[in-house]
Amino acid sequence: MVAPLPVGSLLEPHHDGSPLYVSTQSPQLGDRVRVRVRIPHEFGAVQQVRTRSNPNHEPRFAVASLIATVDGWDWWEAEVEVENPTHGYRWLIKMGDGRNLWLNATGMHTIETLDSEDFKLLAYPAPPEWATSTIMYQIFPDRFARSAAADARQLPAWAEPAKWDDPVIHIGPSTATQLYGGDLQGIQEHLDHLIGLGVTMIYLTPVFPARSNHRYDALSFDEIDPLLGGDEAYIALIEAAHARGLRVIGDLTSNHSGDAHEWFQASHEKPGTPESAFYYWMDQEQKTYVSWLGVPSLPKFNWNSQELRERFIEGPDSVVAKWLKPPYSLDGWRIDVANMTGRYLAEDLNAEVRQIIRRTMIEVNPDTILLGESTNDASSDFQGDAWHGAMTYTNFTRPLWGWLSDRERESSYFGLPFGTIPSYSGVEVFEAHQQFAAGFPWRVRLHTMNALDTHDTPRFLTHARPGTVPVALGLSMTMPGIPVVFAGDEFGLVGDDGEHSRTPIPWEHAADAEPTLELYRRLIHLKREHPALNGGGIRWLHVSDDVLVFVRESEEEAVLVVAARADFELSLAPNAVSGVATLIVGDADALFDPAVGLVLRGRGPAFAAWVLPGIDIPEFAAEGTVLELEG
Amino acid sequence: MVAPLPVGSLLEPHHDGSPLYVSTQSPQLGDRVRVRVRIPHEFGAVQQVRTRSNPNHEPRFAVASLIATVDGWDWWEAEVEVENPTHGYRWLIKMGDGRNLWLNATGMHTIETLDSEDFKLLAYPAPPEWATSTIMYQIFPDRFARSAAADARQLPAWAEPAKWDDPVIHIGPSTATQLYGGDLQGIQEHLDHLIGLGVTMIYLTPVFPARSNHRYDALSFDEIDPLLGGDEAYIALIEAAHARGLRVIGDLTSNHSGDAHEWFQASHEKPGTPESAFYYWMDQEQKTYVSWLGVPSLPKFNWNSQELRERFIEGPDSVVAKWLKPPYSLDGWRIDVANMTGRYLAEDLNAEVRQIIRRTMIEVNPDTILLGESTNDASSDFQGDAWHGAMTYTNFTRPLWGWLSDRERESSYFGLPFGTIPSYSGVEVFEAHQQFAAGFPWRVRLHTMNALDTHDTPRFLTHARPGTVPVALGLSMTMPGIPVVFAGDEFGLVGDDGEHSRTPIPWEHAADAEPTLELYRRLIHLKREHPALNGGGIRWLHVSDDVLVFVRESEEEAVLVVAARADFELSLAPNAVSGVATLIVGDADALFDPAVGLVLRGRGPAFAAWVLPGIDIPEFAAEGTVLELEG
Repeated sequence: MVAPLPVGSLLEPHHDGSPLYVSTQSPQLGDRVRVRVRIPHEFGAVQQVRTRSNPNHEPRFAVASLIATVDGWDWWEAEVEVENPTHGYRWLIKMGDGRNLWLNATGMHTIETLDSEDFKLLAYPAPPEWATSTIMYQIFPDRFARSAAADARQLPAWAEPAKWDDPVIHIGPSTATQLYGGDLQGIQEHLDHLIGLGVTMIYLTPVFPARSNHRYDALSFDEIDPLLGGDEAYIALIEAAHARGLRVIGDLTSNHSGDAHEWFQASHEKPGTPESAFYYWMDQEQKTYVSWLGVPSLPKFNWNSQELRERFIEGPDSVVAKWLKPPYSLDGWRIDVANMTGRYLAEDLNAEVRQIIRRTMIEVNPDTILLGESTNDASSDFQGDAWHGAMTYTNFTRPLWGWLSDRERESSYFGLPFGTIPSYSGVEVFEAHQQFAAGFPWRVRLHTMNALDTHDTPRFLTHARPGTVPVALGLSMTMPGIPVVFAGDEFGLVGDDGEHSRTPIPWEHAADAEPTLELYRRLIHLKREHPALNGGGIRWLHVSDDVLVFVRESEEEAVLVVAARADFELSLAPNAVSGVATLIVGDADALFDPAVGLVLRGRGPAFAAWVLPGIDIPEFAAEGTVLELEG
Repeated sequence: MVAPLPVGSLLEPHHDGSPLYVSTQSPQLGDRVRVRVRIPHEFGAVQQVRTRSNPNHEPRFAVASLIATVDGWDWWEAEVEVENPTHGYRWLIKMGDGRNLWLNATGMHTIETLDSEDFKLLAYPAPPEWATSTIMYQIFPDRFARSAAADARQLPAWAEPAKWDDPVIHIGPSTATQLYGGDLQGIQEHLDHLIGLGVTMIYLTPVFPARSNHRYDALSFDEIDPLLGGDEAYIALIEAAHARGLRVIGDLTSNHSGDAHEWFQASHEKPGTPESAFYYWMDQEQKTYVSWLGVPSLPKFNWNSQELRERFIEGPDSVVAKWLKPPYSLDGWRIDVANMTGRYLAEDLNAEVRQIIRRTMIEVNPDTILLGESTNDASSDFQGDAWHGAMTYTNFTRPLWGWLSDRERESSYFGLPFGTIPSYSGVEVFEAHQQFAAGFPWRVRLHTMNALDTHDTPRFLTHARPGTVPVALGLSMTMPGIPVVFAGDEFGLVGDDGEHSRTPIPWEHAADAEPTLELYRRLIHLKREHPALNGGGIRWLHVSDDVLVFVRESEEEAVLVVAARADFELSLAPNAVSGVATLIVGDADALFDPAVGLVLRGRGPAFAAWVLPGIDIPEFAAEGTVLELEG
């Protein structure tokens, strides 16, 4: 909290959870992990360095030793014993002039800091290896592609059929019932498009039978909606995707079912039935009930019920397990309204529910990812015990909108009641990102979704300042996290609210979108081709109103990134980066001036990246090594 | 996080949990509480105001109405439904120029804020009414006063008797065994001293039999140490204290017992005994065990044991209950090492244990207070479910030391490994206070200890800049929280570490300390005489390197406080306070200058306070009232 505002070029001690600074990404309880901090010579004389852990909420200090000096930076190493599954630690730097400085996940501080901002090691089971480099493609099935098979399907009574070119209804009762008839075969027919883009994982919003086009009001979790092609089409799609190297994850509502769900039908106004314990009833006759934000079609689950747990989330016969096993073999779940799940009045079963879900997944298919929707401050639930990452809008999406949207535009801006998009400076984008990302352990940051938009928001382009799509997309591909392409964005679609943005994909007009498609291909491949962008550390080098500069770093290479909403010319601090910078994307100059360091210059809005040599530092010492103090 | 640094005079929208801003201090789940924010006209035109609650981790907004304009401030009122026992909310202010501003417990923000910094309503059972105005006097029994009865007592083998004037041994093995022989009768004989000072509650560090002078290594929780006078002297002391209007609280170690404790003796190397489940054994023969920070004399409790729970904390026959009931009738507990209790590796039973303790207390004697020791960032455990307040050093004690100690003094400064006291500016004191206090619900802030020092720290005077004791003591009496007098401070004692500061009280030389004693009496009575200091709101008016100014406010009155470590002259913002200021303590000037507002001037170091009229605003609207929007 209340950190000094970093404006302009930064050169500060640095640590993050990446392999340059931490000897293992997946320690076990009791392991002694080697950790490192780097301190630039320009920062001043350092007397001593320690880590401060907080096992069982009680401080414990460990002495660090100076192990190397590389390109004007001193590297200090210490050993941290992992005493709790989420093990927090921070750095204490005693300066030659006597000052005590703290370094935590929000940066440098002259005063003591909060536990919640500590760096964190996780001794929980690791996420699957592929997850760190995945690029998500989000599909809303009714609106993606319609196969010929769709024509033969009988529509249910609730559906209002639409032609593919019809405008999306996003106001009034037809919003949820307008049905375009996109199906799973349609998706399968367009896998080439996804391969061409370079994305690596499909996230399908719900595919269970329901009474709406969004299908968040499931009737059943036991079969795939026949309107989408049913189980057979689902198996075929996943097999085809897997054959092309694409992962597929599904979408489950752990907070509620639809009111037409078989469990609700079996218990509503039927006291004494086994499913009665699955919901919160407001009267003895089980007529009235608790529902999601009071919407009657979405009755809220009561997770006190062991029977509900067994049917839905616990063990190899549960819904959670079923779809991860052959013949379906989903690669994971995105859980809807994860934040509200199991929470009601004085009751909070959220941690139990999420941990059971992950335990079941590990049991039947450990090579799967688990993401939880929590659209605001998510950190308290995302400490590594279950969710690998968050679908949240606080640390990336909303700050970015604030920076790159036209000011004072009317919009159903998500998260605010006033209908306008707030205006953020680059400094505020940085602050908001740091603040909300700092609460996540590094591993969770790497698996948290960096979305420009989703099926629940307006589309980014709708209100974007001219020329800023590359800036936003470039940041989503280069900042720590899972980049998200919401299907249709690559065709330059717009939409003014979550419903409006559920636009059918204009396959017939794809050629018109070629420049945008090419931008998406290029930036997606940037992420795929550079190891530093898949787990490398992040160090911010410059923050000002119109320009953000950071470098992602690994042993193999470094990628320097500039994102600007206006023309820019700035110099990085001396020794901010080392070696020759080679432009790999965008149009900007990086010139080395021996007097001031690296000078970056370009026309804005701009997104540009350069590759630089990796960081050449000694191996980590073995566990238990006591290094001689050189400092 | 990363709030703009408030330096100099402040005039900002304000809200806190006090009765001026919240219609009830003890709502029930489901109640609709009326809340208010005040916004100064100088702040600019306001378009709309809302509260943002976060029930079940999902945002919900409520519209506020302009209800009054008083002395240049607009007051807005909204209704918040208490949906969870700890119900967070913040304010969203839409300015006339379109900006969205957030107000939370750390202040004003232009970016979205963290849930942990929300204001919080608590629907848990309220603390006892007397607790909000209590003034704690901490006694370390061996060092307070020795009655004639002590001479006749047989000393145990471990004890090394000391004469009252002997220097305190604070290094080496005799540190814990040097025994001065202070006893409970000695305390009872000096109740006049406490009454004269004006304190209202005695906190006794442990009084159970043990094998050390500090008695944190209890042999038993079932009797009072005969060396202190036993049960009889305990009953007599508490009765005498109650007769004088003084409360008495005890000290329990829920994290560990002594290794000579009857439960440990019954289980150490004795597998299969009922007490075996009370501890964490490292081998099957129960020879080695987990202990507090590895100290073998303090074996750690294993709270998985239901038998341990029943004997120690749960129900009317437990230790926790026994001492709160007649004939003892303690007024509450301070729990030692509350932060580590029930935490070990992947296990965290802390919430269960603390909630059981409080439930038991409510069952046998609800008019009691429960404080938990958590010497660093305490907020995550102190959300109102059990502890009424924290014994912590982050939000008051250490910032104050940083501000008022001589720079660069060697000291066993608590919480840091380097042996020097960090140096804080007034701005850093403010930031540290705001940061660590913001995590506490208002009710918890009011019951958190504001100690200059304790039996675990050096004494404040030891390293204080000349003349700053009134500044520190004045702040402890006027900032939200329970002021603490660690017995001996009022006699001007010093001590260079926790052990050294356990100094026998120099009763024979009391006359020499008269100026210090008089200072204590005066400042303690300031707290007792002014309702605004016992639950009133706090508004910061000026923050700079050498001066802190705030006002505590209630309907009845306002108390304006200046704390300075140097000479000062400053003007408060116009309308910062209203009405005539009458000096009630200290030596400083408050002059109203129509051009600039109230001018405060004085020689430093200084502590001064003025009384001003209370805040005259309309009654809160009834629950459910929809106010017409005037704004």
